[in-house]
Amino acid sequence: MRIDLNADLGESFGAWRMGDDVAMLDLVTSANIACGFHAGDALTMRRAVAAAAERGVSIGAHVSYPDLRGFGRRFLDVSPDELTADVLYQLGALSAMAGAAGTSVRYVKPHGALYNAIVHHEAQAGAVLDAIAAFEPGLPILALPGSAVLRLASERGLTGVAEAFADRAYHANGTLVSRRDPGAVLHDPDLIARRMVHLVTEGEIASVDGTPVRIDAASICVHGDSPDALHIARRVGEALTAAQVGLEAFA
Amino acid sequence: MRIDLNADLGESFGAWRMGDDVAMLDLVTSANIACGFHAGDALTMRRAVAAAAERGVSIGAHVSYPDLRGFGRRFLDVSPDELTADVLYQLGALSAMAGAAGTSVRYVKPHGALYNAIVHHEAQAGAVLDAIAAFEPGLPILALPGSAVLRLASERGLTGVAEAFADRAYHANGTLVSRRDPGAVLHDPDLIARRMVHLVTEGEIASVDGTPVRIDAASICVHGDSPDALHIARRVGEALTAAQVGLEAFA
Amino acid sequence: MRIDLNADLGESFGAWRMGDDVAMLDLVTSANIACGFHAGDALTMRRAVAAAAERGVSIGAHVSYPDLRGFGRRFLDVSPDELTADVLYQLGALSAMAGAAGTSVRYVKPHGALYNAIVHHEAQAGAVLDAIAAFEPGLPILALPGSAVLRLASERGLTGVAEAFADRAYHANGTLVSRRDPGAVLHDPDLIARRMVHLVTEGEIASVDGTPVRIDAASICVHGDSPDALHIARRVGEALTAAQVGLEAFA
Amino acid sequence: MRIDLNADLGESFGAWRMGDDVAMLDLVTSANIACGFHAGDALTMRRAVAAAAERGVSIGAHVSYPDLRGFGRRFLDVSPDELTADVLYQLGALSAMAGAAGTSVRYVKPHGALYNAIVHHEAQAGAVLDAIAAFEPGLPILALPGSAVLRLASERGLTGVAEAFADRAYHANGTLVSRRDPGAVLHDPDLIARRMVHLVTEGEIASVDGTPVRIDAASICVHGDSPDALHIARRVGEALTAAQVGLEAFA
Repeated sequence: MRIDLNADLGESFGAWRMGDDVAMLDLVTSANIACGFHAGDALTMRRAVAAAAERGVSIGAHVSYPDLRGFGRRFLDVSPDELTADVLYQLGALSAMAGAAGTSVRYVKPHGALYNAIVHHEAQAGAVLDAIAAFEPGLPILALPGSAVLRLASERGLTGVAEAFADRAYHANGTLVSRRDPGAVLHDPDLIARRMVHLVTEGEIASVDGTPVRIDAASICVHGDSPDALHIARRVGEALTAAQVGLEAFA
Repeated sequence: MRIDLNADLGESFGAWRMGDDVAMLDLVTSANIACGFHAGDALTMRRAVAAAAERGVSIGAHVSYPDLRGFGRRFLDVSPDELTADVLYQLGALSAMAGAAGTSVRYVKPHGALYNAIVHHEAQAGAVLDAIAAFEPGLPILALPGSAVLRLASERGLTGVAEAFADRAYHANGTLVSRRDPGAVLHDPDLIARRMVHLVTEGEIASVDGTPVRIDAASICVHGDSPDALHIARRVGEALTAAQVGLEAFA
Repeated sequence: MRIDLNADLGESFGAWRMGDDVAMLDLVTSANIACGFHAGDALTMRRAVAAAAERGVSIGAHVSYPDLRGFGRRFLDVSPDELTADVLYQLGALSAMAGAAGTSVRYVKPHGALYNAIVHHEAQAGAVLDAIAAFEPGLPILALPGSAVLRLASERGLTGVAEAFADRAYHANGTLVSRRDPGAVLHDPDLIARRMVHLVTEGEIASVDGTPVRIDAASICVHGDSPDALHIARRVGEALTAAQVGLEAFA
Repeated sequence: MRIDLNADLGESFGAWRMGDDVAMLDLVTSANIACGFHAGDALTMRRAVAAAAERGVSIGAHVSYPDLRGFGRRFLDVSPDELTADVLYQLGALSAMAGAAGTSVRYVKPHGALYNAIVHHEAQAGAVLDAIAAFEPGLPILALPGSAVLRLASERGLTGVAEAFADRAYHANGTLVSRRDPGAVLHDPDLIARRMVHLVTEGEIASVDGTPVRIDAASICVHGDSPDALHIARRVGEALTAAQVGLEAFA
């Protein structure tokens, strides 16, 4: 049995540091690297890509709305044409960094508000897929199970890949509990690790009302905004390894 | 006999228009396309690239300092590492647009203050070349004859290509008359066209003191900031054609 | 009888020009000046403010979401705290320009997508009003009749001022016909001028279904995205003057 | 005897944190607050201003070149007109934040590369002063002793104020040892504190070659890029207080 662990990386910008890229890269198999639109100036990108490549971590394009000020966390009502061009631009920029490091971009993961928008917003979901189709149709997109973007990807013959979130609570219908609601984010590393082992080995997870819910995921996102992100990622990785689950990039 | 005509294109940004890309594309053989740092949002880039590709015009990356507010015309004292990463980023972004249009980036032309800086500034010149070497070592760079960047390119086995400026006056030593000095910019389309025919067919041009000066150029930049840019480009192209000079992309 | 004519000005940015500020300033009594978030670098602002002050045109802050790339025309889901601070920032910046020209900011007019959002979006409407209350509670805000922001302003004892749009069609209930629908924008300067005279002198305007609709407006926006904006503004001003309506800043 | 302690604050941006504003505000008497050009989105500015106002700390405008990506640390060859407008814009923006907190901007301190440029660059120094003269001629500017900007301020009847740097080494002629040279930055809090007490009480400091050098400063900058900045600031403040030197804002 195998699973991928992904995390957001390269989220520094200029003089501002965010996260501990090097420490996280030792724990994950896929790195969602910011492409300059919500974080990640070009030099930060280049260094993050080089560090990922050295460790054999798979590189994904963490594409975003153009919103440094809001860290890509605010919905922006862009037109599909603008969004397709913006995503294509970011894919190309990261691709040059990857090429310079002797590797290539292996997948796309929309970031923040864009990630959330394309769960439902068909026009924006389609626009992101248009960018992938124009760039390299075989490139997988990592998204939420049940999202519009995964359904549209499937309809268009593109490759959608579903992911689970290590530190998030789920409703019985498989959707995430909103961050605005209490209990949305889990903090206990041991509990989180046990849930992820159960998810990978049994294909299900306990929802907030106790009901088990089936989640079909090829990757687990171990990133979180909490300072514990690194600790949680380490525990999840250790627990999976102990359960004989291999950690391997999905792409 | 053959020569290339190049012009700056894709210099609109969002709601702001600059230049008449489509008209200029019918006159030139190489298009220096802005990559988002001094001009050219992603959608503008995509459209400019598509229009160039449709006409078989060769696509070059018009890379710049990050300075939309100053249109890349103000020297910025970036470190070599930052500059290399910034140029690589722009090369990748434009490359994705070119790939989506079924073509590829064929050359690099630094823009504005960066173009002027690397005539003398060795650290920045080397940084631009580092980006090209990391992206695709065979990619030619278009620059000023006698510049540091062309000398360094030659020393490193990279491909430097010299260009002449249609509407600029030259000193007897082959350098350009500064825009701050009177007579730096020529405005008479017929005079400009005659000078360019002479340059291509005889390899020399009259300097401001009347002395002929030898200029070895594989391309002529017909762009200018004047409203007459289009008219001048047309006259230069017509005069060259009439003189049996073929217009052909250098790259 | 008196009315104010307002138009969007100072919408150039760096090397990009938009509109003919000087010509428009000779026609209007109030200038909505971009504050750097959707257009208007600092030097453009300073020049627009100076030109308005010289002509005795009243200066308003045309505040926007931070979105140069989208010219402030795309809804951005900012939090109220962020929006209040962003509006306050823009008010201060323009105020410094006005002070340097010997005058002051006389009113606020939200721009583009923000203008449209606060017709309905109570949290954003309240956030804009919070900025005004923090900056100078007596400063009027120019907005759409019937909008949430005018209602909230009234409830809070702030000064809301309603405006009409010269070149837009109205529904019988007083709302604007959406730009996505045919006939939303009027183009005939004589027709537009007649409608505005009728609006000012009779307090009503013909809606798209022919029914007259009452519009209570203290200002008429003569700006439009069409190249005819200047011509329309001139005709409206002439027709109002001919009808003995005085043109005078509302603030 | 009295002295002012100043530090750079409000240097976070969006999701990125920098420094510990609240802790530093308990130690200094003047806060140089970033105005959005090198750091400090509007909400960060508003919070920093409010925190400073609550503690009675004097608020200064830490104005910069427009360069978030480079944190204002890279020389930018702006024209005087652009620079004057950019500084005026920032002064106004911060002024609105200060006004909303019931206080006002008390001084100007140029940041980073701009601070360094106006030690020698007369055109840029004059442009910064033009902004101050246009905004409020009585507003003091904090700068390096012996700098062009202080000389020009004096010639123009504006108020220049000289500052010393707590953690920097000085040459015998009173200039700072360049950060590129070894020993430029001091790290021992006790040594630094002793030097500052000597500076304030005796008006001189030991230069790198041991010679005492006279420094006439009305403020001491206790900010530094090191993680020890807070600790150094605390020690300097304690040592000055122990030496009967009152800590008081200069403005």
